[in-house]
Formats: sequence, structure tokens, C-alpha cells
Amino acid sequence: MFIGAQVSLYPMTSDFVGVITSGLAALTPYQDKLRIETDDMSTLMVGAPDPLIDAVRDLFAATARLPDHVTMHVTLSRGCPGEPDDPSCRCDTLARAQGQPLKERQALALAAVRAAPDLAAPIDVQFSLYVLGQDRHMDEIYGCIDFLKESGTFLKSKNFCTRLRGDAGVVFETVRQAFLRFGPAEGHVTIDLTASANSPSLG
Amino acid sequence: MFIGAQVSLYPMTSDFVGVITSGLAALTPYQDKLRIETDDMSTLMVGAPDPLIDAVRDLFAATARLPDHVTMHVTLSRGCPGEPDDPSCRCDTLARAQGQPLKERQALALAAVRAAPDLAAPIDVQFSLYVLGQDRHMDEIYGCIDFLKESGTFLKSKNFCTRLRGDAGVVFETVRQAFLRFGPAEGHVTIDLTASANSPSLG
Repeated sequence: MFIGAQVSLYPMTSDFVGVITSGLAALTPYQDKLRIETDDMSTLMVGAPDPLIDAVRDLFAATARLPDHVTMHVTLSRGCPGEPDDPSCRCDTLARAQGQPLKERQALALAAVRAAPDLAAPIDVQFSLYVLGQDRHMDEIYGCIDFLKESGTFLKSKNFCTRLRGDAGVVFETVRQAFLRFGPAEGHVTIDLTASANSPSLG
Repeated sequence: MFIGAQVSLYPMTSDFVGVITSGLAALTPYQDKLRIETDDMSTLMVGAPDPLIDAVRDLFAATARLPDHVTMHVTLSRGCPGEPDDPSCRCDTLARAQGQPLKERQALALAAVRAAPDLAAPIDVQFSLYVLGQDRHMDEIYGCIDFLKESGTFLKSKNFCTRLRGDAGVVFETVRQAFLRFGPAEGHVTIDLTASANSPSLG
């Protein structure tokens, strides 16, 4: 399996380079666990979902704690048939999910969200989960939405996506559980995610 | 069919509200053709792919012509089984694509890209096309990538996405063709797209 993300951080300030640079410092603890490559549009991170989502979360939480309005876009992918197998992406949660009924996966996802750390960084997220290459993809999507509504981070449904709100710790744990526990464990699943903090539109 | 987008514009300047406001003026010609609703995270646009992609393109081109670094994220969706049918989204290109072989759709896509207007706004885009709810989704993806490589806007393949570069006119026509001509005409197809202009990383 190949698991990773393309991540872009967008600080809405003329000092955006400074904010991005200070945000990237939050990735230091993950340098030995993830392959990280940056170009002019995004940063590729490849590795197991535990360090991967932790790294994305900590990157955004670090900049969300600054005063400026900042947003982030993340394209998450697991199991894309066009990507090579990578042993560093091995994930026990995914391996165990194979054969677990939907109800059990929903309960495990909720337990993981309840155990999430508090990072003192209130954020907003909206995201879409895509389950590819299987006929009955909407069953898993609706099962995931049921989990989201019970997660404590659910804000509202929108066209094409779901809005979450809360501390970065619990919100990104919700996203990780959606990514890992829904859709076939060996299948191709992606997430299109946008995060926002300190938006002046929230008043 | 229901077709639309969630669109977010991110100007990397402390005057981001001013840039967003001037960008939104580019949507005025489309107000009567699209349903447009803005909240604190994104702007929903619902309607047929011709005005829809034109509106997204003109919004970004207008801000790309300003001096500041600006990015945009777009979640495009057609045929989501969870959305209601909307007559305003009717699209002849999609209707005709039903039953057209892949080679013919590729040729029509290339012809449309050749006829795209020049908007004097050089931009970069990276995007992922997702074909949902069918077993052989990668055939359509690879067929689309072949078209992209011949489109004149192809820059490079990246993990999880494809990079395009060129004028906003030809780049967004390439995206529209990818969105409409690949994947089943009546199926669920989405695009996760990021655009960038005036990035200091390009030197």
C-alpha cells in the first residue's frame, strides 16, 4: 500500500513566507518517519497514517495559534493502484479493519476521537471522502457520515463536503478515522480537505 | 444530474479581503446562470459546466492579474447520488459523451482545448480526477492522463495529482474537458483542484 498527502499551507498575510517557514518547523519530529518533499505548490508527505496525520495536524495547529488567518489544503490518498507498494506506509488499523463490520468500525472510530489530545488550536475543516473502484461506494460514505455526526466535531453537511469544527486534536483524529475505517481496507480511498483558522468571516 | 463546485480563494497578502472582493466581481456575468452561495470557508456554485468552469476561471484569472501571490482550491462534483437532480445543470457535452468511445472523447477534448480563449493570466494548477462507483475506474483515469499529456498544458505527474501550467484560458478548458469527457457520463465524478499564481517560489 502507498499512503500519503499533498499539503499546501496558505497564510493570508503579506508575511506568508515567514508563517509557512515557522509552520514547517512543526514537521521536524516527523522527518525520520515520513518522506517529505516540497515544490512550489505543495508538500508531499508519504508514510503510515499515524505520523502522517499527526504531521499535517501539527503543521496546521502551529500556524493556527498565530494571529493571522491561515488555511490549508490537503489531498490524502491510500491504496491508489497507480502508486508502488511502500513498506513504510504499513498500518495496523487498516489491516485489522479488513472484515470488521461497519458498526464495529464506527465504534472504534468514536473511541479514537474521544482519546484525541487537546492542542489548544480551534479550527474549521471541510472535507470530502472518496471511495474509488467499487460499485457500492455510497454505503461506506453514508456509514462515515453517521460516524461524523456522532464525533462531536460535526458542524453541518454542505454540498459535496462535510464541515467539522473543534480543536485541531479532535478534528484531525476525526479525519484520520474517516480515512482509515471507511471504504475497503485494501481499496483506493482519498480525502479532499480544507482547513481554516482565525477567519475574520467568523467575527 | 447535480453539478457544482465549492470554491475558496486565498490571496497571500494582508489585504486578502480586498483581493477576494475584487475577484468576486468577476462572477457578476454568471449570477443569473449559477446558484452562488458564500459562507466563511467557500463559495458554492451550482449550474451547467459551461458557466460553472468559466466563472471559476474568471474569478481566478482576475486575481492572478494582480501582483500578489494567490491560490484557489476547488472541489468539483457531478452526478453525486446524494444530491437532487437540478435542471439548470443540464449539459449537452455530457449527454453526447454517453456511448462515445474513449478515443473519440480524447479527440473532442483536445479540440476544445485548442479553441480556448487567451486570458493573459499565466497560472499553475494541480488536480486529481476521481471516478466513483465503478469497478474499472483507473481505465478512465489513464485515458484522461493521456489526454492531459497531449493538451499542451501538462507540466508533470506528481503523486496523487497532475500538474498543469499555462494561461488560465487553456488550463481551465483542460480541466473542464477532463471533468466532462472522462468517467461515465451519468456517473459520479469529482475533481480536487488547486491553482496558484504569482508564487515567489517560481523565482
